[in-house]
Amino acid sequence: MHTVVESESRSPSPPSGAAALTRVAVAGATGFTGQELLRLLSRHPSVQLIAAMSSGATAAARKLPGLARLWSGEITPLSPDTLRQSDVVFLALPDAAAAELAPALVDAGVRVIDLSGAFRLTAPAERARWYPETRRVPDGAVYGLTELAGGAVAGARLVANPGCYPTATLLALAPLASAGLLAPGSDIIIDAKSGVSGAGKTPSERTHFSEIHGSMGAYGVFGHRHGAEIEQGIAAATSDPHPMTFVPHLVPLDRGILSTIYLRLAPGTTEDALAAVYQQAYAAAPFIRLVGSSLPEIKHVAHTNFCDVGWRVDASGRAVLVSVIDNLLKGASGQAVQNLNVMLGVDERTALW
Amino acid sequence: MHTVVESESRSPSPPSGAAALTRVAVAGATGFTGQELLRLLSRHPSVQLIAAMSSGATAAARKLPGLARLWSGEITPLSPDTLRQSDVVFLALPDAAAAELAPALVDAGVRVIDLSGAFRLTAPAERARWYPETRRVPDGAVYGLTELAGGAVAGARLVANPGCYPTATLLALAPLASAGLLAPGSDIIIDAKSGVSGAGKTPSERTHFSEIHGSMGAYGVFGHRHGAEIEQGIAAATSDPHPMTFVPHLVPLDRGILSTIYLRLAPGTTEDALAAVYQQAYAAAPFIRLVGSSLPEIKHVAHTNFCDVGWRVDASGRAVLVSVIDNLLKGASGQAVQNLNVMLGVDERTALW
Amino acid sequence: MHTVVESESRSPSPPSGAAALTRVAVAGATGFTGQELLRLLSRHPSVQLIAAMSSGATAAARKLPGLARLWSGEITPLSPDTLRQSDVVFLALPDAAAAELAPALVDAGVRVIDLSGAFRLTAPAERARWYPETRRVPDGAVYGLTELAGGAVAGARLVANPGCYPTATLLALAPLASAGLLAPGSDIIIDAKSGVSGAGKTPSERTHFSEIHGSMGAYGVFGHRHGAEIEQGIAAATSDPHPMTFVPHLVPLDRGILSTIYLRLAPGTTEDALAAVYQQAYAAAPFIRLVGSSLPEIKHVAHTNFCDVGWRVDASGRAVLVSVIDNLLKGASGQAVQNLNVMLGVDERTALW
Amino acid sequence: MHTVVESESRSPSPPSGAAALTRVAVAGATGFTGQELLRLLSRHPSVQLIAAMSSGATAAARKLPGLARLWSGEITPLSPDTLRQSDVVFLALPDAAAAELAPALVDAGVRVIDLSGAFRLTAPAERARWYPETRRVPDGAVYGLTELAGGAVAGARLVANPGCYPTATLLALAPLASAGLLAPGSDIIIDAKSGVSGAGKTPSERTHFSEIHGSMGAYGVFGHRHGAEIEQGIAAATSDPHPMTFVPHLVPLDRGILSTIYLRLAPGTTEDALAAVYQQAYAAAPFIRLVGSSLPEIKHVAHTNFCDVGWRVDASGRAVLVSVIDNLLKGASGQAVQNLNVMLGVDERTALW
Repeated sequence: MHTVVESESRSPSPPSGAAALTRVAVAGATGFTGQELLRLLSRHPSVQLIAAMSSGATAAARKLPGLARLWSGEITPLSPDTLRQSDVVFLALPDAAAAELAPALVDAGVRVIDLSGAFRLTAPAERARWYPETRRVPDGAVYGLTELAGGAVAGARLVANPGCYPTATLLALAPLASAGLLAPGSDIIIDAKSGVSGAGKTPSERTHFSEIHGSMGAYGVFGHRHGAEIEQGIAAATSDPHPMTFVPHLVPLDRGILSTIYLRLAPGTTEDALAAVYQQAYAAAPFIRLVGSSLPEIKHVAHTNFCDVGWRVDASGRAVLVSVIDNLLKGASGQAVQNLNVMLGVDERTALW
Repeated sequence: MHTVVESESRSPSPPSGAAALTRVAVAGATGFTGQELLRLLSRHPSVQLIAAMSSGATAAARKLPGLARLWSGEITPLSPDTLRQSDVVFLALPDAAAAELAPALVDAGVRVIDLSGAFRLTAPAERARWYPETRRVPDGAVYGLTELAGGAVAGARLVANPGCYPTATLLALAPLASAGLLAPGSDIIIDAKSGVSGAGKTPSERTHFSEIHGSMGAYGVFGHRHGAEIEQGIAAATSDPHPMTFVPHLVPLDRGILSTIYLRLAPGTTEDALAAVYQQAYAAAPFIRLVGSSLPEIKHVAHTNFCDVGWRVDASGRAVLVSVIDNLLKGASGQAVQNLNVMLGVDERTALW
Repeated sequence: MHTVVESESRSPSPPSGAAALTRVAVAGATGFTGQELLRLLSRHPSVQLIAAMSSGATAAARKLPGLARLWSGEITPLSPDTLRQSDVVFLALPDAAAAELAPALVDAGVRVIDLSGAFRLTAPAERARWYPETRRVPDGAVYGLTELAGGAVAGARLVANPGCYPTATLLALAPLASAGLLAPGSDIIIDAKSGVSGAGKTPSERTHFSEIHGSMGAYGVFGHRHGAEIEQGIAAATSDPHPMTFVPHLVPLDRGILSTIYLRLAPGTTEDALAAVYQQAYAAAPFIRLVGSSLPEIKHVAHTNFCDVGWRVDASGRAVLVSVIDNLLKGASGQAVQNLNVMLGVDERTALW
Repeated sequence: MHTVVESESRSPSPPSGAAALTRVAVAGATGFTGQELLRLLSRHPSVQLIAAMSSGATAAARKLPGLARLWSGEITPLSPDTLRQSDVVFLALPDAAAAELAPALVDAGVRVIDLSGAFRLTAPAERARWYPETRRVPDGAVYGLTELAGGAVAGARLVANPGCYPTATLLALAPLASAGLLAPGSDIIIDAKSGVSGAGKTPSERTHFSEIHGSMGAYGVFGHRHGAEIEQGIAAATSDPHPMTFVPHLVPLDRGILSTIYLRLAPGTTEDALAAVYQQAYAAAPFIRLVGSSLPEIKHVAHTNFCDVGWRVDASGRAVLVSVIDNLLKGASGQAVQNLNVMLGVDERTALW
């Protein structure tokens, strides 16, 4: 019913409008990111959501109470056949399942947007270390940090949707590195804080409410695979080597990442020069909001696809960058739909604004 | 920029589309409900937001970081002149300010949607007790609990937008009372739990994070003005008198109300009969979701305009009703926009879905 | 006052003091209540903690980082032999395990304080319904709601430590019922709200941080076994039958229960009469704090063994009682140690103040 | 062990014990740290709490519901005369009030433990910059980071109780700096996260529940006075200059600080060498728990006076140190009582274990 009303109001010429709808499927629809995908795609005017699948769905289709009225479909068991009949497939699956499914789908002519980590690292050695399940990367694979990918996403066959920590971090860091604003060899320290939804929906002692409420801790020091993804992003922005330290923390909130980045600027770099670089880099980026010295807060981006970036520079050339996103939207499903929009050639903000 | 793109995609005939826009202003735009109004109205295709005012705005216009890019306007000082040039004015002001402003605006031909309590109680004695600042109620004033108001909102000159507790409570309770399903004279116990945003944005000891985190308490026992509003709603639904006890509680979450209602059913009333009454009452109500015995949870309605209603009945005729809303949306600004939609004759879901 | 009592109870006769220590063991030491028991018993001057066991402990003893320095022992696998060598055993185990272990321990001359539900219900039919694993109740079993048990706990062989909801609820309700202050046949509505630690430490979808943060819901309507325990407590206080409705809710905090109780008072009962009944009932109860019309809040009892009780009465004889406890202390491990103190004849506050 | 120590310290000579009690007063008793002081001092066997004063106390003495039964006193208006009759005075007042009161009290022979920042910075220029209200520092003033102060606290006339961030940070950082384990000139990056109680009890927009719940942000970048205090602590530990960057963040929890510290180690420093330095530094420190590579979490120190310190070192000589405290206890009132114990010559853990 909702669909009817919206399509009426949005599409002045129904006959051709209906024909143009892109057939989209979601594999892994019951996790946190899968449900966000359903929410976004169900209101996307250019797509027809033909299937929402769960590898864990039993005979009795799962109910998703929060999506009642917004989406009238049912969760069905994972069916590669159905996936092959789609124009675009979103994979919100564990790494191993995505590593196996994606190449076959691309071979079958389906475009894939993969939210797992299986295809994010391009250097074979790094990929083998962190994602050993990935045996083959299809042609046409693109790392889909939308704002930094140039036009590559538009023609991609497979989009490796970035991790949440790398998204927040690289959007603040990469423009400065690309513009040569980092002091040569400067250490880069990334202290990141994430809400609990980033840990996924599977219950564990670590995600128990009573373990997190009123607490906080660091984890994955010197050994988080998102560190490798961030290093890849820095190397793509500058050939100057920069030792990078990445420490994620789990904080007692549901949605949101805040990344605080510490570095030294090239001698003579002013706060104005830094601001100018950001403004140029993101002049055409609707989802990047530059807040400068007022510093961003998670509450302003929660439940949105925005990334807010702020910064402070001191007289001795030290800089502190702060970047915030909603980890389930700009850090996962929102960016995935943003990439879909780029692939379809529609307004980047469709279904996200 | 955003507006241009959306209006392009939504309105096939721009010249006449622009002419038809309703001129809307918000008075009290920096509080929690005011900011939600801006967020909703900035994406509403039928309105032009001509002013967003704050009685506390100083010379330097306030920034609203969360609304950057979504709304490009500025908060300006309260100006009755500008309000009089609007087609519709939303008042998100303290009771006293609304009580004074609203009648004058209605006299000037402006339609008013008032989110304060000033005009909610229709019995003069009750209004004088709880809202002594209200000296005059303009003609054409309607209590705007949308789903229960019948068609009255469509032609209203002033809509008294309901309180958050009465909205959650009456949407569950009124259909049963109207249908004669309550046992004659049955006590009605309403134990309601609200997130902290319901207490408003003004800092106080009571809303300090450290007072509420990890805590909970009852307040306003036998003396909350929303109790009078609920009693008015019950009396509108049934002439049978029912002693009503209403106890609100403050719980450590930001957005959301859960109302648990205890009553006795007329002898012989089955759970099926109860379900049938609800289904009939809300057959055409897009924002009411009936979840029955699975019972609703706040997380499924947070950040939406939905009201989810569940219930359980036991063999001896006792019923427990549970109703949840987002207090800032269905409990305030969302319902206000829903009422605007009814007044404008557009789809009730516009800007809310 | 406190200082005097403690120093008296701790060092009456230093030389022989060591010889007089009671040998205590905890079975089920790694759950939330088990860890609280260790914390309390490790500082109890009258006991020697000889073993802390976990049915899930593997070969490598578990670390409990929060207890480092406070308790130097190790968690060991469950050993019935070692338990039989104790003077007093605390069982913080699942119902079935407790139902099996407790009678054998009592037979062996060990006094047992059981935190499970296995022995709480005294009517065989009710016990068979809610705790079917319980096949035999040893002689000398006592329901250990300390303040209401009279002297029975002192000589008990087995103390059935009450449930968290019944503790909070009955401490507010029972004195009024015992004193005949309830209107004949008055409905009793109990709307209870609990923090998440009450759901236990085992991870589940229901206790996932992201499911609870920012949310709230009712559960177990008309079917929670604590309802049977509350009914038993009411029946023990008054022979007048009172229909009782109990609805628990899960709220987004870690520790604490708030129980709101609705009832009608016998005609003519004043607020003063009600206060007098409470004051008499709890004149010698160090852990009950009567706050009257100021109403209690969870934050004042969190991390303590206190139960704060408040109330409001209206002119028509309706009463609202509000009671708060820390569910892991007065609602579980704190009350268990309080019962131990009564059994040992030491100051009731030892290790709890 | 604990039991033995406490009973020794509590009743060395019962008859004269009462005569030996130290007369203690608290000025600023209604703030978060003031209430913690009352809680701790009310159970301290060596002190008599003769007055608890509030500069804001009105004629009607304030009630502190959480302390009912634990402390039977009343909050009274600030009275310098009464303070002068004390042996030891705790000042939990704003900086300006402490700056004025403390010297006069010391002149009068009263020992002062000051929880404000007024006397923390010893370099006149730094003190003048950050605490301009401090016009005179009395003789015998000591910076009271207990574990690092050597024996200086024992004879102090005025103890400047450290800030919460410096306490957490310097306890992790100073031993390494003192032992020469930092690479010469290594940058030191301190990314600290604090619960909201650290912002004090005065309501403000910044401490409103709805501003913080579900959010997080950095503040005070390059301009927090605790940064100067940390730099002073580093300079006391090593003469080698180290550029220091300190960025605090406000996180959605009530109590607790987590400080993550990034630095480079002197070439060849192993993780074992680092651990050995810590073990030696804190061999006699009951409140420092070294957790090494398992990394500490706030929940293990909340409501205690512990500081848990963990660390990780990588092959290239980078180190990440993580330190956690309860900001109201080890970061304020707990450390203040610990300092009192040192001043009185009683067991350091008295009233804190």
